[in-house]
Amino acid sequence: MPTEQHFPDPAVLDRFAAIVGESHALRDPADIAPYVTERRGLWPGATALVLRPGSVEEVSAIMRLATETGTPVVPQGGNTGLVGGQSPDIGGGEIVLSLSRLNRIREVDLASNTITVEAGVVLQTLRDKADELDRLFPLSLGSQGTAQIGGNLSSNAGGTGVLAYGNTRELCLGVEVVLPTGEVFDDLRKLKKDNTGYDLKNLFVGAEGTLGVITAAVMKLFPKPKGREVAWVGLQSPKDALALFTLASERAGASLTAFELIVDAPLAFVLKHIPGSVAPLSSPHPWHVMLEISSGRSAEDARALIEEILSEGFEAGTVSDAVIAASLAQAESFWRIRESMSDAQRPEGGSIKHDISVPVASIPDFIDAAWQAVLAVEPGARMVCFGHMGDGNLHYNISQPVGGDKDAFLALYRPINDAVHDVVRAFDGSISAEHGIGRMKRDELIATAPPVAIDLMRRVKAAFDPAGIMNPGKVI
Amino acid sequence: MPTEQHFPDPAVLDRFAAIVGESHALRDPADIAPYVTERRGLWPGATALVLRPGSVEEVSAIMRLATETGTPVVPQGGNTGLVGGQSPDIGGGEIVLSLSRLNRIREVDLASNTITVEAGVVLQTLRDKADELDRLFPLSLGSQGTAQIGGNLSSNAGGTGVLAYGNTRELCLGVEVVLPTGEVFDDLRKLKKDNTGYDLKNLFVGAEGTLGVITAAVMKLFPKPKGREVAWVGLQSPKDALALFTLASERAGASLTAFELIVDAPLAFVLKHIPGSVAPLSSPHPWHVMLEISSGRSAEDARALIEEILSEGFEAGTVSDAVIAASLAQAESFWRIRESMSDAQRPEGGSIKHDISVPVASIPDFIDAAWQAVLAVEPGARMVCFGHMGDGNLHYNISQPVGGDKDAFLALYRPINDAVHDVVRAFDGSISAEHGIGRMKRDELIATAPPVAIDLMRRVKAAFDPAGIMNPGKVI
Repeated sequence: MPTEQHFPDPAVLDRFAAIVGESHALRDPADIAPYVTERRGLWPGATALVLRPGSVEEVSAIMRLATETGTPVVPQGGNTGLVGGQSPDIGGGEIVLSLSRLNRIREVDLASNTITVEAGVVLQTLRDKADELDRLFPLSLGSQGTAQIGGNLSSNAGGTGVLAYGNTRELCLGVEVVLPTGEVFDDLRKLKKDNTGYDLKNLFVGAEGTLGVITAAVMKLFPKPKGREVAWVGLQSPKDALALFTLASERAGASLTAFELIVDAPLAFVLKHIPGSVAPLSSPHPWHVMLEISSGRSAEDARALIEEILSEGFEAGTVSDAVIAASLAQAESFWRIRESMSDAQRPEGGSIKHDISVPVASIPDFIDAAWQAVLAVEPGARMVCFGHMGDGNLHYNISQPVGGDKDAFLALYRPINDAVHDVVRAFDGSISAEHGIGRMKRDELIATAPPVAIDLMRRVKAAFDPAGIMNPGKVI
Repeated sequence: MPTEQHFPDPAVLDRFAAIVGESHALRDPADIAPYVTERRGLWPGATALVLRPGSVEEVSAIMRLATETGTPVVPQGGNTGLVGGQSPDIGGGEIVLSLSRLNRIREVDLASNTITVEAGVVLQTLRDKADELDRLFPLSLGSQGTAQIGGNLSSNAGGTGVLAYGNTRELCLGVEVVLPTGEVFDDLRKLKKDNTGYDLKNLFVGAEGTLGVITAAVMKLFPKPKGREVAWVGLQSPKDALALFTLASERAGASLTAFELIVDAPLAFVLKHIPGSVAPLSSPHPWHVMLEISSGRSAEDARALIEEILSEGFEAGTVSDAVIAASLAQAESFWRIRESMSDAQRPEGGSIKHDISVPVASIPDFIDAAWQAVLAVEPGARMVCFGHMGDGNLHYNISQPVGGDKDAFLALYRPINDAVHDVVRAFDGSISAEHGIGRMKRDELIATAPPVAIDLMRRVKAAFDPAGIMNPGKVI
């Protein structure tokens, strides 16, 4: 933490505040606090000013003034990011631009299956709206009650719906972006095919607010499945899970809408720490898969398909035990177990987390190799691996030894991180599959990515934000 | 055409030739001819040298020398592009870099469902290879017997498989690119989720070789459908087609693998000019749809689904008549009709073509509005509209009046083009849905796209190719 903080000139702050009006310009430390802290208490920040603009014109005026005065701006959505991409640094010189008040649904086009939303629309609100319209918006995250679509776009959020529907990037047809100069790049199109020049949309999506401020987007809607079935499966190994995944993909194609792999520990943690949790299967298994099948045709169709997959899995010997949720309530209870895993890990002490991806076929070998690498650092470590196996994406988390010292374990953060990430790189994987780079992984990205890639990214950054005022210190 | 041509210094040409060896450096005009003409005879070009490198190292050495000597380079695949993006200008100062010899399939990973191919692999070869592996590579184009995957990527090719599987962009997981400096950007990853910095892959895909030379890519493979059914449907209007599309999407979801809209004229042209063609339906209809359903489960499943959709369409009154192909041979004959439409249009005289997209819901209104605009220019014009309605993409072609003068009609190229494209813009559509910009639409793009977008594209171009040696005069 720097010993000195440098806040912008108060006269400049007054000019920023005048754009949004005093009631939407927060300067009181108590009002500011929620914008400079995040729920895990990592990445503390400081700012003299949080601006809550109510229109694209105000965002544009803010960025114009930021360019004029050289004031760094940190765009922020629901503040649920896990890599510190949404918070200002501790120096106090950056101002926070909250998109929360840009929360209108601008247009619904059911025939084109699109919805045009502003950045501050909460993901759950968007999901509910789609549901009301008899459509599905498939992006689904643990933090969806707070996360905003602008943040989801800026971090190219993943979650459990990626397998069939894609990342946030793939759900987006067009964006509206305020550039660092205040100019508005209006590309709010609904087109599935458009080959008119460079793909600028995909540059802004996933840029974590370092190239411009996404203020609105055209998102895809999907037909709501008529049938949905969830099964909980017990297996002996990740290898069996891979065989089951291959089988399920072949049989179900795009009807396979979730395939989550879970080792025994996180299930045990949920059963122990989350009140009301019930084990889906009667006996313990070393590994589990949660499988979802959706059908556009009927509930019976989804049921027949999931039964076919599971019985073939039994015959092939890859499935040890399985239960299909008998009711919507039971299906929801399975999902609740899956979504409670992060919370349930907390009472087990120190945890060192990894958000990685490797080619799907490498998942079993990766798990083995990473585990050997972790054990070499801490023989008492516990593997708390769970995640979106169908996407090659695992939350390969490590909990401290039972009864061990938390601080001593957390002191191993760097060596365990390095050990796991070295294995990720050996498998041509990604050290940030779905959470992004932010502040957390910036140094590691720069140190370990191919220099050519870093050079190209720097050229993009310099081309779009030559003054370096857009969310500095993040990504690159 | 310029009156003078300026060829590079022969000493420089010798240095280029030395990189690939004389046998792969073409200098004889007869050898060069196929690389500077394209099949329709548009966009004639001239060059003193065609280089056919055999390795990425040679491509890299060529670009290094191009940077050193300031020599412009035009990358070329199968030379099937429709907008002149792959040919050198007539001035003679540009050299052609053919990727045809980079035609290895580097790796197949069936468990990850990926195939890593070099740029010069012919699309049909890739499709056949996937088929051999009991997989599907869904990119499908009229020119697939000649087009190469590097060109498909550079132009983000579309075709008939986009509805369920996406554009070429969506089929690609990673790229290897030689930059203008000769540096190699190796991003040949197989990851479905990777949030480590800016999305550089999507910048190179669709850039038509103006930012670098794609030398290899990791492409997705899909399970081969177990059942596939094709129906030919007669309808009264595009509005009925839209209703049928909505119904089919809801019922079939991702199993709806093609939805092509066809007005009466192009079918009549095929029946008249393409020997062996047979009308799918016994009576004429003003509009037609060709519909394909694929099932990952079984042939019976695909059959049941397509029957359900068609019978619901009959009940709703949107379908006038329909026939499901009774055999693979009949299905192929339906597809052949669809794919012969460009050829069948030729004997009907002059043709003015448009590759446009609008939001799917706007297709009926667009067709009406564009038709009024065309008739205002030439009352005798004939609408030869067909295309990928499910993607909002139509080949909105116009044939000359029956018995009229071809040259007089072609003299209307600009006013008819402007008329149609003005309507496209009024519907927030794209003037190049799947063919790209190349030389053909560059001036129009620059004149009509929002200046902010053009400015951002120019910044990208300058950041990646500051010397302007990568395929100059194309896109931007």
